[in-house]
Amino acid sequence: MARISGFDTYDVRFPTSATLAGSDAMNPDPDYAAAYLALRVDDGTSGHGFVFTIGRGNEVELAALAALEPFLTGLEVAEAVGDLGAVWRRLVGESHFRWLGPEKGVMHMAIGAVVNALFDLAAKRAGKPLWRYLADLSPEELLGLVDFRYITDALGPDEALDLLRRGAEGKAERIAELERLGYPAYTTAPGWLGYSDDKLVDLCEIAKREGFGQVKLKVGASLDDDVRRCALARRAIGTGVDLAIDANQVWDVESAIDWIGRLAEFDLAWVEEPTSPDDILGHARIREGVAPVPIATGEHVANRVVFKQLLQARAIDVMQIDACRVAGVNENLVNLLLAAKFGVRVCPHAGGVGLCEAVQHLSFFDYAALSGSMDGRSIEWIDHLHEHFVSPAVVAHGRYLAPREPGASTEMYPDSLAQYAYPNGPVWSRPERDPDRAR
Amino acid sequence: MARISGFDTYDVRFPTSATLAGSDAMNPDPDYAAAYLALRVDDGTSGHGFVFTIGRGNEVELAALAALEPFLTGLEVAEAVGDLGAVWRRLVGESHFRWLGPEKGVMHMAIGAVVNALFDLAAKRAGKPLWRYLADLSPEELLGLVDFRYITDALGPDEALDLLRRGAEGKAERIAELERLGYPAYTTAPGWLGYSDDKLVDLCEIAKREGFGQVKLKVGASLDDDVRRCALARRAIGTGVDLAIDANQVWDVESAIDWIGRLAEFDLAWVEEPTSPDDILGHARIREGVAPVPIATGEHVANRVVFKQLLQARAIDVMQIDACRVAGVNENLVNLLLAAKFGVRVCPHAGGVGLCEAVQHLSFFDYAALSGSMDGRSIEWIDHLHEHFVSPAVVAHGRYLAPREPGASTEMYPDSLAQYAYPNGPVWSRPERDPDRAR
Repeated sequence: MARISGFDTYDVRFPTSATLAGSDAMNPDPDYAAAYLALRVDDGTSGHGFVFTIGRGNEVELAALAALEPFLTGLEVAEAVGDLGAVWRRLVGESHFRWLGPEKGVMHMAIGAVVNALFDLAAKRAGKPLWRYLADLSPEELLGLVDFRYITDALGPDEALDLLRRGAEGKAERIAELERLGYPAYTTAPGWLGYSDDKLVDLCEIAKREGFGQVKLKVGASLDDDVRRCALARRAIGTGVDLAIDANQVWDVESAIDWIGRLAEFDLAWVEEPTSPDDILGHARIREGVAPVPIATGEHVANRVVFKQLLQARAIDVMQIDACRVAGVNENLVNLLLAAKFGVRVCPHAGGVGLCEAVQHLSFFDYAALSGSMDGRSIEWIDHLHEHFVSPAVVAHGRYLAPREPGASTEMYPDSLAQYAYPNGPVWSRPERDPDRAR
Repeated sequence: MARISGFDTYDVRFPTSATLAGSDAMNPDPDYAAAYLALRVDDGTSGHGFVFTIGRGNEVELAALAALEPFLTGLEVAEAVGDLGAVWRRLVGESHFRWLGPEKGVMHMAIGAVVNALFDLAAKRAGKPLWRYLADLSPEELLGLVDFRYITDALGPDEALDLLRRGAEGKAERIAELERLGYPAYTTAPGWLGYSDDKLVDLCEIAKREGFGQVKLKVGASLDDDVRRCALARRAIGTGVDLAIDANQVWDVESAIDWIGRLAEFDLAWVEEPTSPDDILGHARIREGVAPVPIATGEHVANRVVFKQLLQARAIDVMQIDACRVAGVNENLVNLLLAAKFGVRVCPHAGGVGLCEAVQHLSFFDYAALSGSMDGRSIEWIDHLHEHFVSPAVVAHGRYLAPREPGASTEMYPDSLAQYAYPNGPVWSRPERDPDRAR
């Protein structure tokens, strides 16, 4: 009768702002960070999850994790991982915490880290990588993970079960295919806003050589720069590789339509985050205004209720789920079900710290046991900070290789947690670091 | 050259769950709480603001306030209060913190507390109650408080200025009227879900005698109970007093339409929070499905972008702004402008700890200098915890009296901050309190 004995949490930050990797029109100087959770079990095992942030405020997520610890400590592990739907409902429905959202922001993301740590634990106990653990569940077991609150006007339990049953047909063949061939990746490496034109072109050529089917550029700071950079990128990759752009929410509705209109000549695979992730009606108007350019969003979509409406309003062509923004695997399962219902492709957001590791399992699961489709789908890839993970995501020839190690790939090395501990780990306490970074 | 010298913050909680005051279908046991901020100035003055929460997790808001402190400390006060629009944009636009929302949840509410503390300071320095301070600003000065990001498709600067200029016509007469007659209040005192039928009837009769024009009942736990309680309330108040109901987000779209249909016979002034505050399209469908029953929401609406869409989608009849949910006075000024543009009445959410104190200024300002209308408008009133405030809100004969003391009415007595300090203040450390409340 193993029980959860408590949380070990870590404020881990990487000084990425020094290189401008990760720079975009909204986020000029991110220090990629994780509010990291090791959920301890008294038999010596553990489950791992985290909230990804970009630096300052990471400690607020740590405070949220601490608030959740009493709700987990003492739980019998077999019971908890045996009904992860019930645990999810208890955490997300906790009325005091709910007031702090509801179902959005700091508290919701912290719940996501806890949920993901529990799934890591569940998959490890089953001896399977998370995507296989999920794919091996029956449609009825998967349905038990879903909370249908607020989505029944778009998708009810009967229809969801139907989708899951149809998704299970041919599952074994698709699992074998995934294990053999992996899943498409696209790369954002060339496109950070802080990079020079030369660096952009070099990285585009490298991406093409490496076999990526799509590259993505950050845009939205200067239209002239964007036109020039898109032209350079398109010339470097040719017509055989797709080109997507990402505005990171900097536009209003009308300015998005105008700006995208000027860039449409570059045959865009999608335009990502044209405006506020809360603006469902705005996305719908933008999509209509720039058709047929596809519109994508999701990395900052707070929960399933917003995704539901983006789909109902026909506001997006591409759903970009994020492993750490919503309340973990359960809520992303709902998002995948909604995408399947509305026939929208899912291309997860990744990068940051550990987002590739965490989210890959969801796309692999989706192909194996839900949508059964890879058409136009790919997972974002940035070759950055993977060395800190015990079972890092691996991309080769433009494809994610199927994770094979048990768990959710969310476990970091203890040495990384120590080296990058903020503010007192060796990386941050070196004298050359500005002591007043918080300002 | 007075400068901001730092934050004093307090975790203040009131054991309200002991009485079931505040109980509703979503929140069975709130302990009303404030993450309270005294923004210190080196000349000995201070500005006061807070985030209202319902207990657990209040400490997470304290962590968010601590993260914001370095951004304020050292600022010259005259410069800060002289351009509160710039301060707002700096805080809300801070990219690292923005990642934790964006513009929603724990971080956004903490920014709201800081902004409201700055407005308290500004009004005190001007020697005016906040509503008068705002009403005395010119249309151009008010416009300078507004960030139009993400709302220009509904309301641009020119149209906003036009609304403010028209709102200023006849301002002096309306200010005099407010000072003489106050502003309508409605009461939620009778309607908490934990109250017996007898208590409900008694409190409805008292509310009628006291001159309130509207009472509100909590609903949504049991349809049979709701039918019985609405009938009892309607009998007690007669037809001369309005009856509103509040479901606190417990329904899905279809169940809301069904449930409200069964209660429509009681001639409802509005149905509040029928479903998720994020569900714009859901509110629109509910409103259409139960017409002509008015639909209200807002106390959990995260920001101006969601309010904008609720108005664009014709999803609500009543906008219920909350002083502490969004990023303070600036963002609520946008919300009031949007309501004026779309011709929707504003009836603020209040109650809790200090919400009546804080939000009354916004309705008084709106009548004086923006909408110029009280038709169908009233501010929620709950006669609870006002004794902890230095300049408490006062309701008499069913109307809020105009605040006359300088500031935003947000300052609490030091003794209250000490008595109700959590977890070590005298109220919480008494032996009869369950030491394990956090579970």
